[in-house]
Amino acid sequence: MSEQRTGISGVGTSSFGRFPARRIEELAWEAITEAIDDAGLMPGEIDAAYVGSVFGPPGIANRVLAGVGLAGIPTFTTEAACASGTVALHEADQAVRAGRFGRVIAVGVEQLSTRFAGPIVPEPTDPEGRAGLAMPALYALQASRYLQEWGVAPELLAHVAVKNKAHGAHNPRAHLGGQPPSLEQVMESRPIAGPLTLLQCCPMSDGAAAAVVAPYASGDVEILTSQLSSGGLWGSSDPTPWGVATVRATAARAFAATELTIRDVDVMEVHDAFTIGEILTLEAIGVAPPGRGAELASSGHTAIGGAQPVNPSGGLLSRGHPLGSTGLAQAAELVWQLRGQAGERQVGGARIALLETMGGGAAGVDANACVIALLRGPDESP
Amino acid sequence: MSEQRTGISGVGTSSFGRFPARRIEELAWEAITEAIDDAGLMPGEIDAAYVGSVFGPPGIANRVLAGVGLAGIPTFTTEAACASGTVALHEADQAVRAGRFGRVIAVGVEQLSTRFAGPIVPEPTDPEGRAGLAMPALYALQASRYLQEWGVAPELLAHVAVKNKAHGAHNPRAHLGGQPPSLEQVMESRPIAGPLTLLQCCPMSDGAAAAVVAPYASGDVEILTSQLSSGGLWGSSDPTPWGVATVRATAARAFAATELTIRDVDVMEVHDAFTIGEILTLEAIGVAPPGRGAELASSGHTAIGGAQPVNPSGGLLSRGHPLGSTGLAQAAELVWQLRGQAGERQVGGARIALLETMGGGAAGVDANACVIALLRGPDESP
Repeated sequence: MSEQRTGISGVGTSSFGRFPARRIEELAWEAITEAIDDAGLMPGEIDAAYVGSVFGPPGIANRVLAGVGLAGIPTFTTEAACASGTVALHEADQAVRAGRFGRVIAVGVEQLSTRFAGPIVPEPTDPEGRAGLAMPALYALQASRYLQEWGVAPELLAHVAVKNKAHGAHNPRAHLGGQPPSLEQVMESRPIAGPLTLLQCCPMSDGAAAAVVAPYASGDVEILTSQLSSGGLWGSSDPTPWGVATVRATAARAFAATELTIRDVDVMEVHDAFTIGEILTLEAIGVAPPGRGAELASSGHTAIGGAQPVNPSGGLLSRGHPLGSTGLAQAAELVWQLRGQAGERQVGGARIALLETMGGGAAGVDANACVIALLRGPDESP
Repeated sequence: MSEQRTGISGVGTSSFGRFPARRIEELAWEAITEAIDDAGLMPGEIDAAYVGSVFGPPGIANRVLAGVGLAGIPTFTTEAACASGTVALHEADQAVRAGRFGRVIAVGVEQLSTRFAGPIVPEPTDPEGRAGLAMPALYALQASRYLQEWGVAPELLAHVAVKNKAHGAHNPRAHLGGQPPSLEQVMESRPIAGPLTLLQCCPMSDGAAAAVVAPYASGDVEILTSQLSSGGLWGSSDPTPWGVATVRATAARAFAATELTIRDVDVMEVHDAFTIGEILTLEAIGVAPPGRGAELASSGHTAIGGAQPVNPSGGLLSRGHPLGSTGLAQAAELVWQLRGQAGERQVGGARIALLETMGGGAAGVDANACVIALLRGPDESP
């Protein structure tokens, strides 16, 4: 059967930060109303909703929809760790593509400030949780291995944070905006889990984001493809660190589904919960060969003004990481970039964008999910 | 586009009860392996999975799939309160029907014993939660109104529990099996929230259930239709109690999608978390007119041996109510009934079955979701 082409016709986000006094619904309402307004629609013109959240309360979908006039449409939830919001976008895209629904809103929402006093630790029944390995420690193991295996200096990790925080300084909605730190400040910030220092770790954020997916129309950002993989079993003998094999496989499928290669991609938002994450991800999707991803930030390749800017929003390191919202915040940034609406952080001439989110595995699984989407800017650039 | 006919080719469940010393994964593994065996498949022949849970840990989908050889297939979660498992079944059905995936497993899993010491209370930011109305109290308000409005004696509520617990006495996997209580014992059990007594409230259970959905083949239980509604806004001026309007609308769509009426239905599993729930549900789907549903249990109409047996498994009141699992436990029971495999609780000549689950609303929404499916027994009855 022939598929419907799909586009993103509207996006919206809340501000990102720590808002423990606010209701989680309020964060979502900001994002949803902005997205629907941006699409030029009224709430009654939305046909279905997918809501991604990891730690949101039961009934999160109807809970956030009812307050903005979206009660009564078919609603679904998605949970795939850090990729929860991106899975919501993927499912919205699939539903429109297949003709199941007309206009669909994908929403991500999370409020970590009211739930966690420290970092997230996997469940105590998981091997990682039993060993007391909080998320920063898990990424630190990847980082240590990477530095050792490829003979890379720790400064190259820190350059990723310097770059993304410089980008985020131009994002008024970023959790950690403001004056960006120097390389020395990143290196000398408090050690969290060696070799990762505080400023190489994303903050625990609250926030929401949303996107309206609809049959493609001129003026939309087209979703050229959205690919989802769920991780296979992960063994200690796996030659790649946690999640990398799944990201690589997903990227290969995204490029195979289009006529594009990584060289065609003008701007990216990828999963940089920790500096090492951006490096491994960019290697997995083919921006650099293994062991060379660490040079991409320090060389300027992935900075705004470089050949392939990565995380112009500031990424998770600066914009913040409200888990279930992240994928849709990435989508919103890329839509703004492709429309030329990104203000001081605009990537010049951005035409093709790549969105990647990887939700970490549990119970021995390589990844809960990885979603990679390729987006194309509107036919008439503004 | 023409839709694929769909069937359930295998079902499985764990035992239901309180198993705080077990891992939530183990409960799911029992259900999944039984369902795949029942379908005559190997794990490698399953193409995708939908996992419903309300309070399961992050990553619940891959968590339960990895241990039984199902890692790496596309996995999705569903959360819609008590209807979470039924939404998983609905989404599996939709995916197979549309040709998105071949064979899909729907799983429901929940472990309440490790999470709650008392009844579930809505979130403190909800009007119900702010008023301290736990779930039994919310249903008690419905029951009080019903008794008053229709001049019904409280005994008629209790008859629902007597019936379902008599059914459940023949279900070796029921949480509250064993010797069923008398009418007096139900009436005289501890008051929970007037007029509901202890034995009119479902237990807080642990358990899991699963079903394999595939393109329809002879020998399968056919899914004639599965309809999902998400609730609209609920106002205090609504003429029907909480959720009823959504159940009624969903039932109307299920019958409209088939050539069937409620009179064609031979056996049902419906959402009887509290006795009043079964009564209001049966009225909403047309088994009895408003105000007359209370007579259905005491008259024998809905008992095994009656004209339209309801909840032959024992229902939520006896089998138990592990929230996310319930819809798939209902599906398993109906598949066994339609195949003639229900042993001492077999409904004679059951050919058409109705499955209904309603997930309660939150934040002023009538219902998170209601799913109603109509199932048809295998072509060659055993």
